[in-house]
Formats: sequence, structure tokens, C-alpha cells
Amino acid sequence: MKGRFITFEGVEGSGKSTNIAWAADYLRSAGIEVLQTHEPGRTKIGEELRTVLLRTRDERLMPMTELFLMFASRMQLLEEVIIPALIRGTWVLCDRYVDSSIAYQGGGRALGVERVKTLIRAMGDRYAEPDLTVLLDIPPIVIPDRLADRPLDRFESEETSFFERIRQTYLELAAEEPRIEVIDATLPLKSIQEQIAVLLDVLVNESSNE
Amino acid sequence: MKGRFITFEGVEGSGKSTNIAWAADYLRSAGIEVLQTHEPGRTKIGEELRTVLLRTRDERLMPMTELFLMFASRMQLLEEVIIPALIRGTWVLCDRYVDSSIAYQGGGRALGVERVKTLIRAMGDRYAEPDLTVLLDIPPIVIPDRLADRPLDRFESEETSFFERIRQTYLELAAEEPRIEVIDATLPLKSIQEQIAVLLDVLVNESSNE
Repeated sequence: MKGRFITFEGVEGSGKSTNIAWAADYLRSAGIEVLQTHEPGRTKIGEELRTVLLRTRDERLMPMTELFLMFASRMQLLEEVIIPALIRGTWVLCDRYVDSSIAYQGGGRALGVERVKTLIRAMGDRYAEPDLTVLLDIPPIVIPDRLADRPLDRFESEETSFFERIRQTYLELAAEEPRIEVIDATLPLKSIQEQIAVLLDVLVNESSNE
Repeated sequence: MKGRFITFEGVEGSGKSTNIAWAADYLRSAGIEVLQTHEPGRTKIGEELRTVLLRTRDERLMPMTELFLMFASRMQLLEEVIIPALIRGTWVLCDRYVDSSIAYQGGGRALGVERVKTLIRAMGDRYAEPDLTVLLDIPPIVIPDRLADRPLDRFESEETSFFERIRQTYLELAAEEPRIEVIDATLPLKSIQEQIAVLLDVLVNESSNE
């Protein structure tokens, strides 16, 4: 893989979209070819699954169904978009990846972190390990304010305790995995982006020394 | 679980639909309450996923996507339909279950039997073990004749070698798992149904002695 694979994680309203767009511009201005993408969705099949996943409906979507659907959407995105881009030498910035499944379905839905890690192992040689994961950390108490302006999907309309479990799982995972860098996303945007720039600079320098 | 869980397996054109309908009638005439269902689909969410799975399209649905989608659809059917029915004491006859994933994605799509078994283990306490699995075995060479009258979906339009791998995987699995009974589905229907009746009678007798 000639490109670098960078994922962004965090709960709803943590500022992932804004900061990914900024990071993509930052890398492009360093002359790097960048592909910006997101889970679930992006491919045609992925968007069909995103619709199934995010729609609120009378029928309850079971947590285990949700877990397998997230992996289905992920495999399509990986094989159709992410891996070919990395092979070409394009850097890929992805909004959510395996850590979201660990935090949301493993922690939030209480299916257990080990169960989700088993599915990640089942991906086998199709699993692409991120070179860097930026975890934008906010206390769930601030989520409602940050989402105040938009209609809520099936995840966004969950209770605070759901997001507390997710945050806790994310932070435990970050303590285990050196690739995950935690940034306090309640800081001013400028300060967050300065920290992201430092992390990106490390990868850019490594890459230009190869 | 007070009900019995019976699954039917086999390649396209092996006569699963006909024989499940017959088995349901046979059990009902013995005074048993029966629920007849199928994978993928049946629930509203399952039918949305069935559409994603069976549609032929320009975009290639990746084998790993297909694998996770089958499990997503399965979990919804299990938790919403099958497990509640078994708890009520209803017998469930299901057209396809985990053995289809082992045979089709593990064997047919060459993702490996062990990978699929890992996902089955990840189902944890939500996995319901069939009391009996009827494998209707036909040589793939006869499939085209049996499907001649209908438009083909994404699976049915596969080549013979795909179905050869599936049959082989089914038969290897049947050799390992005592719950799987192989019936030669090239025999006359009457003979097939006599054999199914013998298998059902064993379960009915066990059940009435409890």
C-alpha cells in the first residue's frame, strides 16, 4: 500500500466532517492526492445499506443485524474504494471505520468488544489497518446542542447513556491502540486543527523519507 | 425452546420450497403448530436486504459484503421471528440457514469454511441450533433444467463450477454434523417425502414423549 490510511472517530456532533475536510485540504496543499470518504455508505450498495441502517421505522433493527450490516457496508467500501486507492498511492481519509463498530455496537449496543473484534479478525487479509486514527472526544452532554439544527437519524436520536458507553469504549480502545490519538474536541477549532496538523506532519515526513 | 427448529438446505432447483410446504402440512396434520419461513428475507428489514442481495447490477457486490449481509438478514429473522416462535412452542421450518453461508460464501465464493464458522460463533447465545437439517442433494448439472421457467437472480445465474463447490461443501459439512440428513433429490418426489416423513416422525415422537 503506497497511500496512507487515516480514520476519524467520535460521537455525533464531535466535528468529524469539519475536521476531515480541513485535513484533506491540509494534505492536498502538501501535494498529496487525497480521497475523502465515510462509513456507512459511499458505494451504491453501501448507500442502499446506509438507508436500511439510518432510517427510523416501526420495526426494530436488532443490534446484531446492525453489527453485521456495518461490516457488510465496510467490506464493499474497502474492496471497491479504499484498498484500490491505497494501492494507487492515494491517501484515504475515512469518517468512521472498525473502531466505530467496537464503540457503537460493542459498547453502545452492549454486544461486547470481543465479539466485534472477532468480526474484524474474520475480515482476514481484506482488513486494512489505519496508519492513524484521530478520535475527536467530547462529553455526550454537549451532543444535543451540537445537533440542534438537523433532523435526527436512528443513531442521533439515542439517549445520552448510549453515547456515554460509546465514549467510554472509544477511550479504552485508544489506551490499547497506539495508532489512536485522542483530541479534546471541546477546544476551539483552531487548536484542534493545530493538533491534527502535527499528527499529519509525522505521516507526511515519514512518507517523503521513503 | 419448546418448538423444534428444522432447516432445509440445497442448491437452486433442489426442491426446497416444494418439500418444506409438504413437511409443514405433514406436521400440521399431526396437530403441530408450524411456522414456515426462509432466508434471506421474511421480515421487512430482511426483505430490504434480500433486494440488495439478489439484484443483478453493474456494481459488483463483494463476496465479503454478501457474507455479512446474509448474517445481518439472519439475525433479524432469528430475533424477530424464529426464536420467539420456538419459545412459544411453534415448530419452525426454515428454507436455508447457517449451512447456506458455509456452502455458498465459504465454499462457492471461496471465502473459506472457517471464516464463516467464526461468524456463526460470533452469534453467541443468539445462535439457535437446528434439531434437524434436511439437505436436498442434486448434481449441479441438472440445475439449468430445473430453473428453465423463471428469470434468474444473482445466485441462480452463476456458473456450474460455483454450484459444484457448494455441493461439495454441503456434503463435507453433512459428514461432520449428525443433525444434517442428506436426501438424494433426484429421486421421485414420493420417495423424497417418505424419507422426510421418517425424519420428522423421530422428532414428533421425541417431542410427544417429553
